[in-house]
Amino acid sequence: MQKYSFYQHFEGWEEFVKRPLGERLPVFFREGRIYDVLFSQQFDRPFLDSLYDLTNRIRRIAKAREGARWLHDLHGHRRAMLYFVQPSTRTFLSFLNACHILGFHTSEIRDPHTSSEIKGESPEDSIRTFSSYVDLIVMRHPQEGFAEKTAWLLNVYSDRPVPLINAGSGSDQHPTQALLDVYTLQRSFEDRGGIEGKVIALVGDLKRGRTVRSLSYLMKNYPGVKLLFAAPPAFQIGEDIKEFLSNQGVPFEEHTSLEPLLGRADAIYMTRIQDEHDKDGKSESQYEDFCLRKRDLAKMKPDAIVMHPLPRRGEIEVAVDRDPRAMYWRQERNGMWIRAALISVIFGSDEEVRTEGERYLSDGSPAYSL
Amino acid sequence: MQKYSFYQHFEGWEEFVKRPLGERLPVFFREGRIYDVLFSQQFDRPFLDSLYDLTNRIRRIAKAREGARWLHDLHGHRRAMLYFVQPSTRTFLSFLNACHILGFHTSEIRDPHTSSEIKGESPEDSIRTFSSYVDLIVMRHPQEGFAEKTAWLLNVYSDRPVPLINAGSGSDQHPTQALLDVYTLQRSFEDRGGIEGKVIALVGDLKRGRTVRSLSYLMKNYPGVKLLFAAPPAFQIGEDIKEFLSNQGVPFEEHTSLEPLLGRADAIYMTRIQDEHDKDGKSESQYEDFCLRKRDLAKMKPDAIVMHPLPRRGEIEVAVDRDPRAMYWRQERNGMWIRAALISVIFGSDEEVRTEGERYLSDGSPAYSL
Amino acid sequence: MQKYSFYQHFEGWEEFVKRPLGERLPVFFREGRIYDVLFSQQFDRPFLDSLYDLTNRIRRIAKAREGARWLHDLHGHRRAMLYFVQPSTRTFLSFLNACHILGFHTSEIRDPHTSSEIKGESPEDSIRTFSSYVDLIVMRHPQEGFAEKTAWLLNVYSDRPVPLINAGSGSDQHPTQALLDVYTLQRSFEDRGGIEGKVIALVGDLKRGRTVRSLSYLMKNYPGVKLLFAAPPAFQIGEDIKEFLSNQGVPFEEHTSLEPLLGRADAIYMTRIQDEHDKDGKSESQYEDFCLRKRDLAKMKPDAIVMHPLPRRGEIEVAVDRDPRAMYWRQERNGMWIRAALISVIFGSDEEVRTEGERYLSDGSPAYSL
Repeated sequence: MQKYSFYQHFEGWEEFVKRPLGERLPVFFREGRIYDVLFSQQFDRPFLDSLYDLTNRIRRIAKAREGARWLHDLHGHRRAMLYFVQPSTRTFLSFLNACHILGFHTSEIRDPHTSSEIKGESPEDSIRTFSSYVDLIVMRHPQEGFAEKTAWLLNVYSDRPVPLINAGSGSDQHPTQALLDVYTLQRSFEDRGGIEGKVIALVGDLKRGRTVRSLSYLMKNYPGVKLLFAAPPAFQIGEDIKEFLSNQGVPFEEHTSLEPLLGRADAIYMTRIQDEHDKDGKSESQYEDFCLRKRDLAKMKPDAIVMHPLPRRGEIEVAVDRDPRAMYWRQERNGMWIRAALISVIFGSDEEVRTEGERYLSDGSPAYSL
Repeated sequence: MQKYSFYQHFEGWEEFVKRPLGERLPVFFREGRIYDVLFSQQFDRPFLDSLYDLTNRIRRIAKAREGARWLHDLHGHRRAMLYFVQPSTRTFLSFLNACHILGFHTSEIRDPHTSSEIKGESPEDSIRTFSSYVDLIVMRHPQEGFAEKTAWLLNVYSDRPVPLINAGSGSDQHPTQALLDVYTLQRSFEDRGGIEGKVIALVGDLKRGRTVRSLSYLMKNYPGVKLLFAAPPAFQIGEDIKEFLSNQGVPFEEHTSLEPLLGRADAIYMTRIQDEHDKDGKSESQYEDFCLRKRDLAKMKPDAIVMHPLPRRGEIEVAVDRDPRAMYWRQERNGMWIRAALISVIFGSDEEVRTEGERYLSDGSPAYSL
Repeated sequence: MQKYSFYQHFEGWEEFVKRPLGERLPVFFREGRIYDVLFSQQFDRPFLDSLYDLTNRIRRIAKAREGARWLHDLHGHRRAMLYFVQPSTRTFLSFLNACHILGFHTSEIRDPHTSSEIKGESPEDSIRTFSSYVDLIVMRHPQEGFAEKTAWLLNVYSDRPVPLINAGSGSDQHPTQALLDVYTLQRSFEDRGGIEGKVIALVGDLKRGRTVRSLSYLMKNYPGVKLLFAAPPAFQIGEDIKEFLSNQGVPFEEHTSLEPLLGRADAIYMTRIQDEHDKDGKSESQYEDFCLRKRDLAKMKPDAIVMHPLPRRGEIEVAVDRDPRAMYWRQERNGMWIRAALISVIFGSDEEVRTEGERYLSDGSPAYSL
């Protein structure tokens, strides 16, 4: 008997995971409602539109104290576990506070070394333990496919499955980041005909950033969008994405610096060149052509927006923050609200928000508490 | 003046701890009600029966949203501190979520290095600090007797004592684990005349596991129970337990493999051979006779149950999980509920649960939220 | 382009911080109400009197279950972030539970290594991220002035500033510690004419302890107070404080041992000689003249009080704890209540506590839950 040999095999998993994604997805829905949130491929246009409407409602309900309390009582008896064994302050806090907006109590595992894994427990058993105590698991894990495997396991093996949200799994999927990015575009362009027909520049590390990949993927839902990619040659967008866009009829261009795109783009989506991955010690100074400075603002369209998934390093100058077109801090806050809405959908309280919540709707004007 | 010399002596402690357990116990009760939960010896049969009835009620109240909210409001103004300076994800999360079910706000110390101890504070002062801020302390500590000492200290020295629950102290006591094990037996056998008269096999590391020791101890409360011990010679049950069982008239047998017990036992309580303690590097392969495999299930009684305190390693094959007799995941969940009930007893809300809670009782059928 | 060069400059900060404190303070107030709590210099006598009255009310409201629930619902829809990147269990727990008393949900960063800073984010960006998700930031940071800088940044740069409380910044300011110390004096002397005219001995490390410095500073608000300093020569009170006291007309004396002050002081404020800072390995034994022992109690005034900011090491013998004049554990608890009151003031619920809260006021008699 080799150590852990028992954990090599969950009956049925090997067969399941070999099937095409389209055949696997139904396992992660319940009665037509999303249950486990694992892939951007689970979101179609009606889902996005409905989720964004719900997000807007939740924000407006939360503006006044009575509404915020009502939201807080909605799931006040629920408990969530945030299992973040890969460091991520931002996504962690965004989910944590999204849970708190809805009244969830929360527990967290952020360091696998404090967990029972040191006693030789399999990660799958650990997740199953969490599912014993809580009503929702939000998971960030360095291993590709781990979120899907555990969601499958809970659905198939457990007599008490709980929904699972993938908050970043390996290098492939980060579905709620894609949701918040598209929501930010939609919200920014809502008085200008929506996302349809807009020109969106994507800048920086397009090769390895899963943010850009997921966003490109979802753009197929918005007719007339054109994508402009600007990246150093070594970080240009992958062939698979280009092929996907071509097949979907989404036009795109490839560029080698940001400058020529400044005046054309309705949205400039900046990203960090992730040179912490680089082995050859290249410095940021090589990437000056992919930075946005205060002096560049004059060249931009007056109603364009600047986005960034954050954290940033030098690729957006701090002085840009004070320009009204800088949208990245609001984009970050959007993430919390869209996650609250998503959890509401999973737990089926969205209908209640739309009906009973109506009486708490405040107008859209800014208020202290938001 | 030697460093910390002041901390060597709390007036009265040395005299107190020398007294027999029976004389010390009254300090940890208030007006006939348990206040500090430190030892399995604090639980008699009426206490166990009453606690298990309360646990069942709390679970049923929590099944529907209105009931869950009512429970959550019961102690919504209370605060608990979880002081877990010995790693234990499972027990930690179980207590944390038990607190959350009752609405407690929680704070946690899981790493003593982040605490004031680095400034030279005594652990006793640290605990007293926690007691200043919260209404309940749940403590796991590597040092034997530390939980009792600090509970005593709070009762005798503090002008504002708070109740303390021992969540595992050194190698000796883990009273709430014993509570949940017996509750699992009781719940499993409730349609078959209760625990009385059942044959219970205890398998694996019987020497060092405090779980098995506490469970054996509590069996004296259930007439007619027979215990079957199966362990490698080096891990057989201790002489003190055998002597205790003989004195209490609890029959037992000793075996050197699990196989002959499969067909006899009403409950098979598996445990991990804790070879992380071994110095001679023995591998698990030597303990194959103390593992439960899918192929063993056919030899078991059709209504027997399999228990395990978890985490497991190889001693129960994953494929066993899908058998309806596999009780260990439910056993784990039972722990959370029994801890919630225990806290309700300590804070005197049990009567309210039995009376006012009656109107929230849902039937015993499974519901989404559990 | 040097790394992080963008972060060296926030437009306006260099000019702002050069201005005298009196000119900077208005930025941290809103409509006459304190918004960011950064400096002891923000507290005048009317503020202190009003805050202490509010603190007493909150404590009395919290004594009974209905009152505690009412308090808990006051801000049940609010969220706070505790950013404690310098270790401090006591202040951390005090603020955390103060938040919980008022119903805040909380999130925490206690280890900067788990934060996005490893991806190269500036600390200022990290704080701004936190401000996106929560309604209040409580911050402890090793860097002098960091709390002021980030509060300024949020007020000037962010479209959604949130209030910030300094829970200890570098070696200079710890304003809520000063608040709780003065509150403890006020509460202890409330039947004896208040703090005015009292003799207060300050003992131990007077040079480096920011506690003693802030307390000395606030004493100018209480006419007739006399300060007695007792410290080893190397740890005597600084010249700047002596000059400040002279200018304010606060009389003081310097002594080289505690003994002669025992019979004169109305309050003896003990502090730890922080020899973890010493490089020459001096042992505590050299500081015996600055320790309080059980045998010293007989020499003290019968209605004097003993204070200590805690944690203590050997400078107060444990046996002193049982004397009714030992006030340090209550002083510690006072800190939690004063912080709850302070947060209530910042969020403007103080008026509601004084009016609607009136009906929950219980009498001052001790109750279980406090």
